[in-house]
Amino acid sequence: MKKDTEVNMMHGAGGEVMGELLVTLTAFKHNNAGGIGLESLDDGSTFEIGGKTIVLTTDSHVVKPIFFPGGDIGRVAVSGTINDLSVMGARPVALTCAMVIEEGFPIADLEKIVASMDEALGEAGAAIITGDTKVVEKGSLDGIVINTAGVGVVDEDSYLIRDKALAPGDKIIVSGTLGDHGLAIVAHREGFDLGDQLKSDVAPLYTMIAGAVRAAPKGAVHAMKDPTRGGFAACINEMARKAGVKVVVDQESVPIRESVASAGGLLGIDPLQVANEGKCVMGIAAEAADAVLAALRSHPLGKNAAVIGEVVEGSGVVMRTRIGGERFIEPPMGDPVPRVC
Amino acid sequence: MKKDTEVNMMHGAGGEVMGELLVTLTAFKHNNAGGIGLESLDDGSTFEIGGKTIVLTTDSHVVKPIFFPGGDIGRVAVSGTINDLSVMGARPVALTCAMVIEEGFPIADLEKIVASMDEALGEAGAAIITGDTKVVEKGSLDGIVINTAGVGVVDEDSYLIRDKALAPGDKIIVSGTLGDHGLAIVAHREGFDLGDQLKSDVAPLYTMIAGAVRAAPKGAVHAMKDPTRGGFAACINEMARKAGVKVVVDQESVPIRESVASAGGLLGIDPLQVANEGKCVMGIAAEAADAVLAALRSHPLGKNAAVIGEVVEGSGVVMRTRIGGERFIEPPMGDPVPRVC
Ligand SMILES: Nc1ncnc2c1ncn2[C@@H]1O[C@H](COP(=O)(O)OP(=O)(O)OP(=O)(O)O)[C@@H](O)[C@H]1O
Ligand SMILES: Nc1ncnc2c1ncn2[C@@H]1O[C@H](COP(=O)(O)OP(=O)(O)OP(=O)(O)O)[C@@H](O)[C@H]1O
Ligand SMILES: [Mg+2]
Ligand SMILES: [Mg+2]
Ligand SMILES: [Mg+2]
Ligand SMILES: [Mg+2]
Ligand SMILES: [Mg+2]
Ligand SMILES: [Mg+2]
Repeated sequence: MKKDTEVNMMHGAGGEVMGELLVTLTAFKHNNAGGIGLESLDDGSTFEIGGKTIVLTTDSHVVKPIFFPGGDIGRVAVSGTINDLSVMGARPVALTCAMVIEEGFPIADLEKIVASMDEALGEAGAAIITGDTKVVEKGSLDGIVINTAGVGVVDEDSYLIRDKALAPGDKIIVSGTLGDHGLAIVAHREGFDLGDQLKSDVAPLYTMIAGAVRAAPKGAVHAMKDPTRGGFAACINEMARKAGVKVVVDQESVPIRESVASAGGLLGIDPLQVANEGKCVMGIAAEAADAVLAALRSHPLGKNAAVIGEVVEGSGVVMRTRIGGERFIEPPMGDPVPRVC
Repeated sequence: MKKDTEVNMMHGAGGEVMGELLVTLTAFKHNNAGGIGLESLDDGSTFEIGGKTIVLTTDSHVVKPIFFPGGDIGRVAVSGTINDLSVMGARPVALTCAMVIEEGFPIADLEKIVASMDEALGEAGAAIITGDTKVVEKGSLDGIVINTAGVGVVDEDSYLIRDKALAPGDKIIVSGTLGDHGLAIVAHREGFDLGDQLKSDVAPLYTMIAGAVRAAPKGAVHAMKDPTRGGFAACINEMARKAGVKVVVDQESVPIRESVASAGGLLGIDPLQVANEGKCVMGIAAEAADAVLAALRSHPLGKNAAVIGEVVEGSGVVMRTRIGGERFIEPPMGDPVPRVC
């Protein structure tokens, strides 16, 4: 395959193609501060201060439109960073907020975005303590870019959780329905009116995840990740590949909303390949799965949590279909919905 | 004055007008993590972990063009964050790197930018440990936006330094010539060929600042800030206003390169109002000024450091001119050079 010389949309789509660009973008010699570094390509990285493990993460947001059913760019920007910290077992402490704004952007929209970010911070018990603002000439940017970075700490009663440590025998749990965010965005863009049927799941998951982690013995959550760009398909393939294991998913158990499934069918988009912004995927020691599932379900954001499969020896991710067949859940080239977060 | 309803270029120019927009953008209730919070509008904010003071900061970068005499967007992105940590007395530990890239951007340019960032990291002893990449459609962004956030720790032999604690009697020191970055950018854009005469000062200042801080007794550096957007004029006015003091600057002592002064004259731009990306402004207890100055001058990045004035009771910033007069150094409405960092 010819090496690309220019960046294309798939390079930002969270799938296999993005991995190629990341080789270039992560070619830092100074890539590690004494903990988990850039080379791990995990949801965040770590370093130690005063005997504590600190987790650091960042995401920029370019979602279009900026207000959509179920949320807005501000809620995504805070939730995304909270969730990358939370899936690593950390408690979000402090976030940054950096905005690049196009000349002419309505200040009333900024007020709405700030209020929405503030609400999400409150739900997670975190704060934005520093920021930055740049303005560029009209036409130089399509609206606004919001970046948040976040610092979290791994508390005594929690532990550092990676995305790479699935082990044969583990149960795979998802914390709720899949595909909501991506399909809500694309349906909204296409002008479908589905009322309250199809809306983004965007939410900060810290309290839900913290409860689930503490519901089982320390270490029982072997691996965790948030299925954002590229959806569940990209996420579970990455987890399986990093661990050198095979994952078998039971189609019957995968929670997908009726509205999401039908919109996906209509639009030719697989709900498993589009971004979620309020879900996590966990690999749990089998004996702890019931306790973790119960804890998730006791939280408003986790009431549709389900055990959807298990880890076995081998490689790849397969789905046992309703009619008893098996097919691969392929690692997608990228998320079929651009500008989704 | 009528309240603006739309964002304009001055809102991002680091001066008085930007302050108005910041009222909206910093209206978070969740704005503090138990240390210095958003309300302080300092170079960074703080929180405590394991008995250590942690400093957090962020900046997005939209400088145009992305390669310019003396540096590039990558070097600015790393140096800016290193410097905001350093002026607070912290040692930079870990940075994030989030890129938003326009479809069609040359991958060879990304390679150059990453190499440049890596070099700047090496100069400061820091690392980029996590990042993010988004791609937007051609025409939705003018090239690339790079955000870095940084985490630093205040070491035992250093101390937290604010931008607000100038005290009457303090000496004002600048670490080198003023106006280099802003005038290099604008002259380059205007197509002036000044060879090596006019180039950006962009550099990570950690080692220089760390040496200067340790050259005097603990606490002798009363206040410090990096004079970025809005230049020295915005910086010193903010420092004076926050402390409720007056600053008297001696024009004769202010280091400005010949080439910067003449380009400024030609373009009608005051070198004191444009961004520096490799300088700091310090307020030092008088008895410690010599030691700090000597330490700065012993570092390659500080060889033009100078005592340029002092702090007295009162308010505002005045300049004693060469001919014995006095004029105000006004807080600029904004930086006269757009897209400077
Ligand atoms: N420009 C970049 N520089 C350095 N590291 C990067 C960059 N872009 C991505 N990475 C790293 O690549 C990995 C994958 O990034 P990605 O953004 O897909 O993760 P994520 O934040 O968990 O997902 P999403 O952005 O969809 O929420 C992470 O480890 C991240 O730190
Ligand atoms: N969008 C924002 N949200 C929250 N706080 C912000 C935002 N923009 C700026 N701030 C805060 O306002 C203050 C001034 O920001 P500014 O970016 O001018 O500082 P700086 O980084 O020191 O300067 P420069 O960006 O020119 O390098 C800082 O305390 C910053 O945390
Ligand atoms: Mg993630
Ligand atoms: Mg993320
Ligand atoms: Mg800034
Ligand atoms: Mg600063
Ligand atoms: Mg700065
Ligand atoms: Mg990301």
